[in-house]
Amino acid sequence: MSLHEEIRAVGDAAVAASRQLAKLTARRKNVILEAMADELANRREEIAEANRRDLDEGKERQLSSAMLDRLELTDKRFDGMVNGLTNVAALKDPVGSKISRWIRPNGLEIRKIRVPIGVIGIIYESRPNVTADAAGLCIKTSNAVVLRGGKESIHSNRAIAAALQEGGQKKGLPPGAVQLIQTTDRDAVRELVQLDDCLDLVIPRGGEALIRAVTEMARVPVIKHYKGICHTYVDAEADPEMALSICENAKCQRPGVCNAMETLLVHKDLAPTFLPRIAERMQARGVELRGDETACGILSDIAAASEEDWSEEYLDMILSVAVVDDVEAAVAHINRYGSSHSDAIITNSDAARKTFLAEVDSSTVYVNASTRFTDGGEFGMGAEIGISTDKLHARGPMGLEELTTYKYVITGKGQIRE
Amino acid sequence: MSLHEEIRAVGDAAVAASRQLAKLTARRKNVILEAMADELANRREEIAEANRRDLDEGKERQLSSAMLDRLELTDKRFDGMVNGLTNVAALKDPVGSKISRWIRPNGLEIRKIRVPIGVIGIIYESRPNVTADAAGLCIKTSNAVVLRGGKESIHSNRAIAAALQEGGQKKGLPPGAVQLIQTTDRDAVRELVQLDDCLDLVIPRGGEALIRAVTEMARVPVIKHYKGICHTYVDAEADPEMALSICENAKCQRPGVCNAMETLLVHKDLAPTFLPRIAERMQARGVELRGDETACGILSDIAAASEEDWSEEYLDMILSVAVVDDVEAAVAHINRYGSSHSDAIITNSDAARKTFLAEVDSSTVYVNASTRFTDGGEFGMGAEIGISTDKLHARGPMGLEELTTYKYVITGKGQIRE
Repeated sequence: MSLHEEIRAVGDAAVAASRQLAKLTARRKNVILEAMADELANRREEIAEANRRDLDEGKERQLSSAMLDRLELTDKRFDGMVNGLTNVAALKDPVGSKISRWIRPNGLEIRKIRVPIGVIGIIYESRPNVTADAAGLCIKTSNAVVLRGGKESIHSNRAIAAALQEGGQKKGLPPGAVQLIQTTDRDAVRELVQLDDCLDLVIPRGGEALIRAVTEMARVPVIKHYKGICHTYVDAEADPEMALSICENAKCQRPGVCNAMETLLVHKDLAPTFLPRIAERMQARGVELRGDETACGILSDIAAASEEDWSEEYLDMILSVAVVDDVEAAVAHINRYGSSHSDAIITNSDAARKTFLAEVDSSTVYVNASTRFTDGGEFGMGAEIGISTDKLHARGPMGLEELTTYKYVITGKGQIRE
Repeated sequence: MSLHEEIRAVGDAAVAASRQLAKLTARRKNVILEAMADELANRREEIAEANRRDLDEGKERQLSSAMLDRLELTDKRFDGMVNGLTNVAALKDPVGSKISRWIRPNGLEIRKIRVPIGVIGIIYESRPNVTADAAGLCIKTSNAVVLRGGKESIHSNRAIAAALQEGGQKKGLPPGAVQLIQTTDRDAVRELVQLDDCLDLVIPRGGEALIRAVTEMARVPVIKHYKGICHTYVDAEADPEMALSICENAKCQRPGVCNAMETLLVHKDLAPTFLPRIAERMQARGVELRGDETACGILSDIAAASEEDWSEEYLDMILSVAVVDDVEAAVAHINRYGSSHSDAIITNSDAARKTFLAEVDSSTVYVNASTRFTDGGEFGMGAEIGISTDKLHARGPMGLEELTTYKYVITGKGQIRE
């Protein structure tokens, strides 16, 4: 069987399974999810063994320690994976819920009802727990899922996927509902994302290079975010203590993630007093500052930012700092250099708040809070399949509802069009 | 200026305009729309003259009579174009409306607010009235629009676009908000749909060949429908009189449109009595029937359908007819051969109705009504930018709401993430 035929067969099986999944009740899906969790727990040793094999091979191939860290299924991560499935089972099923309903003058009843998307491809790197997380969210929403993990985690992914499939199928999970691409051939990604008569959506998760490659190749819709260049703008009318606390949190609490602050913008009137204080705070935490001309004039000991700094996602203890004339200038900077992820204003001014919230073209905008809250769990969604900086279908953290679409269901009494 | 630079300049101007449009109040946008309508009305003669030029050139180039018909701006169509703009002005503006709102335990207020998509490309053929219709819907929703009409209607489109721009700009329409691609170079479409840092969405409107070409080339999201292969399934428990009336309407009332019925499916128990009656009705209207083996056994005077007939969008007085064992077989036929547009069941059975509505994977599903109602106007949306058979963002008729996306607006009191 050629690679093309192999991926085609996976796609066809997924479509068939998606038809069966659409018929399952919420109750049945939850029983299946619990069975998937149980089987995973039962095979802890087997999966740990597969994970050790991946780690050994990764060390031989001299993968970076960051990559090896992401690859490792610690006990805590394993428990998280199992609990993730039972937590998803406990969430409300959005499928079949009514978005809106109205009656036309001719008596036609129009209902807009949530339905599954169909078949979803997930393309990801290193973290084997994505295999279970993504499968759980897709099954909960009656979507068939095709998983394509990285070569470095293939043994772990195979062991996890087998547990999910066999556990679920005991309770009625349709074969083909959860499939892992078995080959590590790189061309399989291309074949998969061009399968536009089978896949309804692809969600790539991983580094920017992976996401760009998937987007370039895809013939099916992709929901994604390339990166998170998040800004905090400290307005002239900010409470300085609040601003200090939020900025420190946004930059330092977990600098390696997409919702951490990368650039600080400060109003010119506040800059002379605020910049020395935030610099002291940041430097005490080990953050390197890179400033624009005005910032460097106020803070003599920091490096100058280059033009590239403003569009750099450091994912590290580095912060670029610019002084701006007003909220409009802050908005212009963000819309020019930002990544439409998460941006915050710290202010007590109604006017500045309104301008910022209306004009910053990002999926999540904050007033007087840390950008670190952009997360499905922090939003109260209970689960997250990813974060979108796209404009269409889903923006920001994506939970269960974002894995559904809708159909119009129209009920008549014989109405015909005049 | 190269073609690439020309289209890039259009895209950049559209992005700049979209930032300005996002700041306009609903009231200001309505004043602009009224001014666009007025200027269009003022230039009736000038636009008619441009349209005559297109028609003359079209005749010289021996365009089909159907194409020339679509090209012609009759008085009625001209009035419709002007009234379309004032009607859109009168509709409720969805931008800024709240989709949902909740408070997190830490006191963060999360609001999900409708916002414009940004910059929308519309690629269309022949009908010059699309120029005004699409511009009106986009401006109403604060989206900048880049219009690319067919070569055959270039003079009409230029005259209409100039009227819209100049009329709107008198009342504050940002330059760049409504732009028509001036060149008729075919490569301009490719340049446009690959401008993924400027365009947020492309909507192609026209024949299937155009839509497929746009989708193949695009690097930006496309919302579309290729075709409408709509089915009516007459169940064993259908009211035969209602079924006759609905089928006749769905096939004959306007056969050349995407929501007309192309295939009739009849339950095997009803077929012996129903098929002769519907055949008589259809043949009296001049409809050619093409049947499967069972249908041909009951109706001796009709042609046999080939395998291709089941996926053919006739757009004509032709109807394929199949006899099916039950509602599950009808669903399977529709999901296999249909186009996810609009499909109807005629039945008084609760069980058959539920199965059909849940399992037919189409954007609009009907019980006891004609598929001809799939239309923004018939849905009560007041306007329509197109119909989507895609799964993501928008399905079915697309009105103003479907030209918006959302952002999360989060208000805190200094919350930081623990």
